[in-house]
Amino acid sequence: MNRLPDSELVLVPGGTLITASAEEGRALALKFARHTIHNLQPDLDVLKGGRPNYSTNPDSLIAAGQVVAIEFQTIAAANNYWR
Amino acid sequence: MNRLPDSELVLVPGGTLITASAEEGRALALKFARHTIHNLQPDLDVLKGGRPNYSTNPDSLIAAGQVVAIEFQTIAAANNYWR
Amino acid sequence: MNRLPDSELVLVPGGTLITASAEEGRALALKFARHTIHNLQPDLDVLKGGRPNYSTNPDSLIAAGQVVAIEFQTIAAANNYWR
Amino acid sequence: MNRLPDSELVLVPGGTLITASAEEGRALALKFARHTIHNLQPDLDVLKGGRPNYSTNPDSLIAAGQVVAIEFQTIAAANNYWR
Amino acid sequence: MNRLPDSELVLVPGGTLITASAEEGRALALKFARHTIHNLQPDLDVLKGGRPNYSTNPDSLIAAGQVVAIEFQTIAAANNYWR
Amino acid sequence: MNRLPDSELVLVPGGTLITASAEEGRALALKFARHTIHNLQPDLDVLKGGRPNYSTNPDSLIAAGQVVAIEFQTIAAANNYWR
Repeated sequence: MNRLPDSELVLVPGGTLITASAEEGRALALKFARHTIHNLQPDLDVLKGGRPNYSTNPDSLIAAGQVVAIEFQTIAAANNYWR
Repeated sequence: MNRLPDSELVLVPGGTLITASAEEGRALALKFARHTIHNLQPDLDVLKGGRPNYSTNPDSLIAAGQVVAIEFQTIAAANNYWR
Repeated sequence: MNRLPDSELVLVPGGTLITASAEEGRALALKFARHTIHNLQPDLDVLKGGRPNYSTNPDSLIAAGQVVAIEFQTIAAANNYWR
Repeated sequence: MNRLPDSELVLVPGGTLITASAEEGRALALKFARHTIHNLQPDLDVLKGGRPNYSTNPDSLIAAGQVVAIEFQTIAAANNYWR
Repeated sequence: MNRLPDSELVLVPGGTLITASAEEGRALALKFARHTIHNLQPDLDVLKGGRPNYSTNPDSLIAAGQVVAIEFQTIAAANNYWR
Repeated sequence: MNRLPDSELVLVPGGTLITASAEEGRALALKFARHTIHNLQPDLDVLKGGRPNYSTNPDSLIAAGQVVAIEFQTIAAANNYWR
């Protein structure tokens, strides 16, 4: 198994939900979504093998976008919406 | 690869969740959903290739509508519902 | 392309999340869901073409019902649940 | 078309999110889910035609259960969780 | 029809969202998910017939897990997270 | 049936939603998702049988990621976002 490096398996990269800006908060939401999947499937070869199907399929991209939207809800609330 | 311009890859266009009106908030929700997908798949040719399938399939449109609904929840809360 | 009239493309019909009653709030949730889809696919002929599949398929109807439920969460919170 | 009676098309049966008990709140969530679908597809014959597929398919039942769960979130918050 | 007993059709078993512990709250979330489905399909034979497909299909189990997660959000909030 | 050990069937491992860090909160979200599924399908052999399909299918991984995102919303709120 071609295991992902530990840095890709950290569940909360940076260790906090607090970010300096909305843009960074959204980037964190994307990382959350990705790192969850890394923990569910830590074999890089398997992940790469699935990528062509996933990344060219609109329905898969929409489903991934939904996960990001949910993660962002949490991060945005944590940051009091960067008001 | 026919990479999208950087402006299409910004995760929070405008840099803030705060908008002047509900209409603008909803437009931002649509942009959020779109720009997430741009970051997951930044090749314009691939995106364009999937568009005919996606945009003529009611189930795909409903799924996209769900992402927009979730993004809007966050933006509406951030704006205190434009009360 | 048989483009929908502009009124069908407004994202927040009426311009506000505030409604006089829960019934009107729920009707707005339905409009939100519909108008998002209109913005994603503004060609009336394509929408009409997909309608027979969508509207006779229980799973599609349930999925649409889920979008309405999410939109309504936002609208109900905005209206302090019409308490 | 064998149109549903008007009572089945009311979006908020009873006109309020406030209920006397959690049990009634949950019953309202079920009604919300059902009446949304009635508004999307008001032809009773079509609904009845889809019922055998839907009601014997675990995935469809789970999807419907998800809609009810989301509706109930709103109703429970409206009622301050019947505390 | 082999109808489920009434106890399996109660929507809010115990009549309240308040529980003594998080563990009990989570058990209630599972009951909520199950009893919704019982109300949508009260024939035990049909439910049992679908169980082999559902319970051995990872995607169905994940979908059911999502319903439980949503129900738990409501119950956890009702209990002020058992803090 | 090769039944999972009781420790894998506890719904709230540790008995509380409160965690010392965001990283631990996220790990708990993963456990929540997993233990729900263990309760729905407690036969280890069946779970192992489904794992190859699930863990190599991007859409299944995204769906699981969505459940984790929802569970994390609850846990993050319970912990006041570890601010």
